[in-house]
Amino acid sequence: MMRFFPMIEWLKSYRKADFNGDIFAGIITAILLVPQGIAYAMLAGLPPQLGLYASIIPPIVYALLGTSRTMSVGPVSIAAIMIASVLNSAEVSTLGNSVESAIILAAESGFILLGMAALRMGGLVNFISHPVLTGFTSGASILIIFSQLPQLLGIPKPHCGIDIACYQESLQFFNSTAASLGLLSLIILILFNKPLVALLKKTRLSQAIIIGISKTAPLLTVVVTTLLVSYYNFANTENVAIVGAIKGGLPTLSLDFISSNKWSLLLPYAGFIALIAYVESVAIAKITANLRHQRIDPNQELIALGFSNLATAVSGGMSVAGGFSRTMVNFTAGARTQMAMLIAVVILSFAIVFASDGFEFIPKATLAAIILMAIFPLIKLRDIIKTWHYDRGDGIAEAVTLLGVLIFGIEEGLVLGIILTIASYLRQTSHPHIAEVGRVAGSEHYRNIHRHKTETWANLILLRVDENITFTNADYVGNFILGRLKNCQVKHVVLIFTSVSYIDSTALEALEVIAHSLQQQGVNLHLSEVKGPVMDKLKRTNFLEKLESGQVFFQTADAVKALT
Amino acid sequence: MMRFFPMIEWLKSYRKADFNGDIFAGIITAILLVPQGIAYAMLAGLPPQLGLYASIIPPIVYALLGTSRTMSVGPVSIAAIMIASVLNSAEVSTLGNSVESAIILAAESGFILLGMAALRMGGLVNFISHPVLTGFTSGASILIIFSQLPQLLGIPKPHCGIDIACYQESLQFFNSTAASLGLLSLIILILFNKPLVALLKKTRLSQAIIIGISKTAPLLTVVVTTLLVSYYNFANTENVAIVGAIKGGLPTLSLDFISSNKWSLLLPYAGFIALIAYVESVAIAKITANLRHQRIDPNQELIALGFSNLATAVSGGMSVAGGFSRTMVNFTAGARTQMAMLIAVVILSFAIVFASDGFEFIPKATLAAIILMAIFPLIKLRDIIKTWHYDRGDGIAEAVTLLGVLIFGIEEGLVLGIILTIASYLRQTSHPHIAEVGRVAGSEHYRNIHRHKTETWANLILLRVDENITFTNADYVGNFILGRLKNCQVKHVVLIFTSVSYIDSTALEALEVIAHSLQQQGVNLHLSEVKGPVMDKLKRTNFLEKLESGQVFFQTADAVKALT
Repeated sequence: MMRFFPMIEWLKSYRKADFNGDIFAGIITAILLVPQGIAYAMLAGLPPQLGLYASIIPPIVYALLGTSRTMSVGPVSIAAIMIASVLNSAEVSTLGNSVESAIILAAESGFILLGMAALRMGGLVNFISHPVLTGFTSGASILIIFSQLPQLLGIPKPHCGIDIACYQESLQFFNSTAASLGLLSLIILILFNKPLVALLKKTRLSQAIIIGISKTAPLLTVVVTTLLVSYYNFANTENVAIVGAIKGGLPTLSLDFISSNKWSLLLPYAGFIALIAYVESVAIAKITANLRHQRIDPNQELIALGFSNLATAVSGGMSVAGGFSRTMVNFTAGARTQMAMLIAVVILSFAIVFASDGFEFIPKATLAAIILMAIFPLIKLRDIIKTWHYDRGDGIAEAVTLLGVLIFGIEEGLVLGIILTIASYLRQTSHPHIAEVGRVAGSEHYRNIHRHKTETWANLILLRVDENITFTNADYVGNFILGRLKNCQVKHVVLIFTSVSYIDSTALEALEVIAHSLQQQGVNLHLSEVKGPVMDKLKRTNFLEKLESGQVFFQTADAVKALT
Repeated sequence: MMRFFPMIEWLKSYRKADFNGDIFAGIITAILLVPQGIAYAMLAGLPPQLGLYASIIPPIVYALLGTSRTMSVGPVSIAAIMIASVLNSAEVSTLGNSVESAIILAAESGFILLGMAALRMGGLVNFISHPVLTGFTSGASILIIFSQLPQLLGIPKPHCGIDIACYQESLQFFNSTAASLGLLSLIILILFNKPLVALLKKTRLSQAIIIGISKTAPLLTVVVTTLLVSYYNFANTENVAIVGAIKGGLPTLSLDFISSNKWSLLLPYAGFIALIAYVESVAIAKITANLRHQRIDPNQELIALGFSNLATAVSGGMSVAGGFSRTMVNFTAGARTQMAMLIAVVILSFAIVFASDGFEFIPKATLAAIILMAIFPLIKLRDIIKTWHYDRGDGIAEAVTLLGVLIFGIEEGLVLGIILTIASYLRQTSHPHIAEVGRVAGSEHYRNIHRHKTETWANLILLRVDENITFTNADYVGNFILGRLKNCQVKHVVLIFTSVSYIDSTALEALEVIAHSLQQQGVNLHLSEVKGPVMDKLKRTNFLEKLESGQVFFQTADAVKALT
């Protein structure tokens, strides 16, 4: 039971101290949920209620099934821009009914995540390297900023991408009132961030209260600008874009979307959304879990996020994942368990039922400002330089993924980055490090003859292969060995297998060919320090017989003793 | 000069003994060229002259540029069935003019191979593992057999694939005369193979003469059955399918195909053909070169095969590669250099100019028999069992590739096999072997505590990571280390890096997180036996400072001395 419902574990030992932390964090997170829910729905090009609905049932499902105690599951910006990219694509937009498309995307993501869980493919997350993930997040965040700038300035043309000319054309529609509201929002958000916290720290207020005050900024921004819009009737007099009428009340469950004919068309896109939702969620969950010495179970997360996405689909919401900014707010506000999110959901539900009329006049410029502030920390351009400095290949992968997202599109950039990392990884493993070693004088240690002062022998070459030998590098290893023989009076070559844990069948064949070639030149091929699992496997073949007068030595020292 | 024209190297030291070998091998290979050229063109669904033209200029170009002394470049069966699969696909066949399509495929393959040479991508061949290549070749060969069976039986329906029902329907068109000619051809070919050789070995004839007699079988088959067809007028009286009128004379050069609008449509298919042509050719070249201690330069082979394919396109031929059976015949007949192929080309040219009228009455059943005999040795079903026995993953890859080719198609099967190998390789590297080691009593050797009797310490864990640490396995390594700490009074963890030659940026970040997590639990993370290149890279970061009280030891023994 506890394995399938990790909630039971923390519920069993739940104390009053936990509740004190959770209730405060829950209130703070609830304040974020309303503007983020509406904003991310609009970012995806969807009616606001899809974001709000996604913030109600899914967090409850995650609380029950997820292994992170503090992650806030709901609509997130990266998934939102991915949904927008799907809905705007020619083949999907011509089919109309974008709400249905978004719900199917969420349902399919859910099924894909559950399928991955069934196949125990949680490890798939490992094949997206940090550089690719960072490059992808930075690129998608830049796209989000470009999509929100027109909203912030009151320009009614949200889909210019990174086409500068398009923005210049749209500038004629610049709306100074909307832009002023947007700037006002930005100023409130910026001031309430570091400056206010720094100021409040000089008072006697507790850390929790300071965080509480600081995190009310989005709500305050929404309330102030919405009151201005509604008092002065800016929507009609100044043509300021507002959220508009919202379907009030709690979400109703429906399975109508199942009969749609869009399932197969949307499936590949849902795959990308599921992959990114999962990878980002696990990354966020791990960051917070590590800080409190808690553990995240990647496979259970697949199950939890899978059911959360099915829940959002059934309740008419958009795709969900763990949100970075919301989770960090929840965590720093003192959340101990998922109880905080349950409290936030209750508050949000009351707001939707009793205050949804007030949402109508929220200016879009304010929502754009809130998105911008949430998204800025995700752009890590300086990270590319740092990565490049440590590892050229990783730096290139990060830059290419970022540029790929900007130039070719979200999914394309991601695929490009993944292919590039895997290709460069394969290329790297296809040139393994092979060290010619000698005996460190007066010891039984064998080290690289180019890095240490060592003793060597005329008739004997010791080669340490520093990688598993597989189809990617078997050829290179063979050429390296044969290349070392030129101009030498060598009678024995010893391959030291300290680093070799695996030899695949391509490599085995290649080693047989090498041994045969060497024999024809009167040279014996020997092995030393062969690990147990490798030896077990070699014994299953006739390779050791094919070595003929070549031997297998337990230690390199034994080989040197026998052959010199 | 010698680098770009490897021909110069052997021409400089060319002797009479070489010529004696080459002229005999040239004659034998020429005998094979006529039936194979016509047969492979028909296998591809093309007029016979495309196969003959492909056997003239391309071998000359390869002789000039190639590094293999004995490989016979020309039309080959696997490329032929790939061309057939492209030409029969709906999108290509509707455009008509299959000759133009085939020529464009050859030209594009040539450009792709030259592009790969320019990017020095000869190493790409390493990413097709032996199991995938064997599975692919076996699968394609089975497809070829199924495509030739109707021809052999005189059934005019060559494209049933592996659909048994389709063959049953076609059986009503069974032509007993054609089938008899086919069986007669098969019998001649089989008898001339091992039985005749065994018989002749009992005489005093030299090995070369025996091979010569044995290898005339295809020509003899063609001559006998063609004479029968033409004498009895089987083509008209018994409706036996024959090759039909052949455009006589030598190929004329033409660049007409350049203005075609099919280039972009055919490009991906040309990529597959180029890849397989290259991989198969290099494999064949290496087999023969190894037997004589000669070297193959993979990148020069890209250039040679690239220009050979451009040459075939310009002279109106089909795609070319190194042919397995023809090369082995050339080699065993005593060819020393590419002079043998030049001689074969001269003989073939005379045949085309003066005897092409005779080609008209060659029965297709005879050509089918010749193809079948050439293709049978390429089917290696037993190899799958051998591979499976040594390595489960490789065995599965081989079987899946073979079945993929049969069920989904040639290109699809190949892609499936490549993806499967790379995915399973990544999966395998994502679970690296990590050994907990202890000191072998009374020595300074450190070995796996589960495989050897070793001394261990309560406050110290020694872990030897037997693989490079990268994005594919960083997570696993971290979890492994943290997992070892449970229920332990451990104060120090030493990671032994004897097998670690590379740490990418994802792994570096993961190690920092692990070190931080351990520190918070009062455990220090140390490193030992760090290789030079790894150390150089770590020093470029602040990782060593982040280890805080963790140290880097030169040898594991130093770590044990310092920490216990």
